[in-house]
This record gives sequence, C-alpha cells and structure tokens, in this order.
Amino acid sequence: MNYPSKILERAVEEMANLPGIGKRTALRLVLHMLNRPKSQTAALSEALSKLVEDVKFCKKCHTISDLDICEICSNPLRDQTLVCVVEDVRDVMAIENTGQFKGTYHVLGGKISPMEGVGPTQLNVSSLVQRAKNDEIKEIIFALSSTMEGDTTVFYLFRQLKEYNIEFSTIARGLGVGDELEYADEATLVRSIQYRVPYSDQKF
Amino acid sequence: MNYPSKILERAVEEMANLPGIGKRTALRLVLHMLNRPKSQTAALSEALSKLVEDVKFCKKCHTISDLDICEICSNPLRDQTLVCVVEDVRDVMAIENTGQFKGTYHVLGGKISPMEGVGPTQLNVSSLVQRAKNDEIKEIIFALSSTMEGDTTVFYLFRQLKEYNIEFSTIARGLGVGDELEYADEATLVRSIQYRVPYSDQKF
Repeated sequence: MNYPSKILERAVEEMANLPGIGKRTALRLVLHMLNRPKSQTAALSEALSKLVEDVKFCKKCHTISDLDICEICSNPLRDQTLVCVVEDVRDVMAIENTGQFKGTYHVLGGKISPMEGVGPTQLNVSSLVQRAKNDEIKEIIFALSSTMEGDTTVFYLFRQLKEYNIEFSTIARGLGVGDELEYADEATLVRSIQYRVPYSDQKF
Repeated sequence: MNYPSKILERAVEEMANLPGIGKRTALRLVLHMLNRPKSQTAALSEALSKLVEDVKFCKKCHTISDLDICEICSNPLRDQTLVCVVEDVRDVMAIENTGQFKGTYHVLGGKISPMEGVGPTQLNVSSLVQRAKNDEIKEIIFALSSTMEGDTTVFYLFRQLKEYNIEFSTIARGLGVGDELEYADEATLVRSIQYRVPYSDQKF
C-alpha cells in the first residue's frame, strides 16, 4: 500500500499492530480520527499514554488498579480470608458486576498452556503461595475456564497449596440459568447431575 | 461495567468511541496494550497525537499529505490537466496502487447524501470549481461509486462545471476482469453491452 503521507502511514501501522485489526480496518479508523474533532483523538492518545505510564497492578492480587493496593484488597468490608483465583482482570470485572461476591481475588495473568509456551513461572503463582503461607486464607475458589488449560492450572495450584490449611473449591459447572435441558451438551449435563444440589439448599 | 481502575476505564471509553469498536473489544485491546512492551503503546499514542497535530490536507486536491501541496500535485511528471475526482483518500490510494494513472486528483471528502445530511457545501466542491476556472484542466474523470449518492454527486458537479471548456468522463462500468458472464447482475451486464469497446481499441 502506498500512503500519501508518512504520518498517516505510521498511525495506520501502529493501529494495525493491535490484535484483530488489519491494515484496512486501521486505515478506516485513522481516517475516521481525521474526520472528527481533533480533541477526541488527542484525548485517546493521552488516555493510552496515561494507561501505560500510570496504571498499576495491585501488589497483593495483581488486578489492574490506580493504587498500589487495589480497592478490593484494601476494603475492610470484603472477606480477606476468601480468595477467588481468576485468569485475568476481565474475570474480576465479570464477578464484580454480579455484586454478589464479598471475598477478594488473585489474578493469575493467564493459564498454564504448554501449547502457547506459558508455564507456571509466567503466572502469579508464587505470590499466591506466599499469600497462603502468610495470610489467613480460609478458602480458595478456583474460578478458571473449564478447559484443558484451566483444569491443568487448577491441578497445579492445588498441588502447590494443599499443604496449607485451606479449603478449596471450584465454581459450579452445570446448566446455565434459563438453559433448556434438551440443548445442553452431554458433559455439562453429566456434571449437572453429578453435582446436584439438595432442593432445600437452593439459594434464590 | 465496573472498572477496577479509572485510568483503564478512560482508555477503554476512548477506544470504544471508534466506529465498529464496542466496549468489550475496546477492553480486550486495552488489556492487550498492558500486556505488551510499554514502548509499543507509547508509539501508538505518539503516532495518533502526531496524526491530528501534523497531518495536512493538500491545499489543491485535499488529499492527506505531509506538505501543503501533496507530492502528486507538485510532481511535474504528473499530467496536471487531467483531474480524477474521488470521494476520499482511500480511493486515491487504490488508484495510485495500480500505478497506471498519471493525472492528478481532487478529493471531495464524501458524497452528496440528503439521508446523512451531507450537502454540496460540506464537500470540497467550490475548490474544484475554482480549479476549473483558474487551472488549465482539460479533462475531469468522475471516479465515484456507482450508487444513488455517487450519481447524484456527479450530476451536481457536472452542472457546476459544464460552463468551462473541459471534457468530462466517468470511469467505465462493466464486468470485472475475470468475472463470469452468467453470474453478472443485470444492470452491470446492460452497461457492459451499452458501453462496448471496439475490439481494435482494446488496451492490454
């Protein structure tokens, strides 16, 4: 592609470096930026530069935060003895959006995946072991994806942590709320029946 | 959506202001930026800020340029008497990529579209009329999309420009190179037959 301007070309190339954005989409986005008020693109540019400069990761749970210790970890109303282990920040946001979880988190930053060359050392595992050792953690909930990598990661973490006096649980697998039984896949249905819940224990 | 960090939230919101990028995609992109080396996102931020600050539009043909007069308009090897009228910069790039056109351009910046509230005054029409008046333009090629809006725009421009001693043409419509006749739509096939080219005039 011949660009009529080097400045345009550089902007397109930097945008096209983002995942899922090709050269054509990048060009469309950049031309859109030129057609809207300058201030909007200046605001985008500043927000991104602030992002990489000022954003922090909580020293305790590794979630993205504006402070050294995130609002959840420093909140006395949250149960600090209950830790939910998740893959990334999006999972924290998803659970926080439910407004139902009153414990804290630990963000691993990924899953163990030999295929993608991600081993335990690339993840925030040692800090979790440290928290188990030092803190008064009573229960750890593994809230990872129900995939080969997710299960492998849970198994690895469990082996690292089992020596401590902690209860372990995983989030429930089963039919989604509103799902119709006849369309459920076999594996899910089997889990749903195996881990059935006494009717008197139902939480509405 | 509750974001764990205001800085993150602002970056996501600015990204989600771009067309075709929703909140979820924006979050995915922003988290990707946090996972890659800082310098890459800093480069993106700088490229965008440079884009809105430094990019210019050619004073003659309105294409994006690093200079006041673009490289095409200032190139003595290009035929300044032949002007190809296009909708936007992408069209200039598409035609330039063929490497076959030796004239110059005039970028309208859109098409007349009452539906979208775009009238002739929003487009670079007066400067084209000015060029027709002052410059020695021999031929104007209308290279606009073959849509209702494109045809309306061509008709409007023709009425504005017909008093000057200029030849007008539109790009040829017909079967694409490599197209099979049986799959062509009717309108295209009709144009292909109406505007047939003497075999001896074929350019290979």
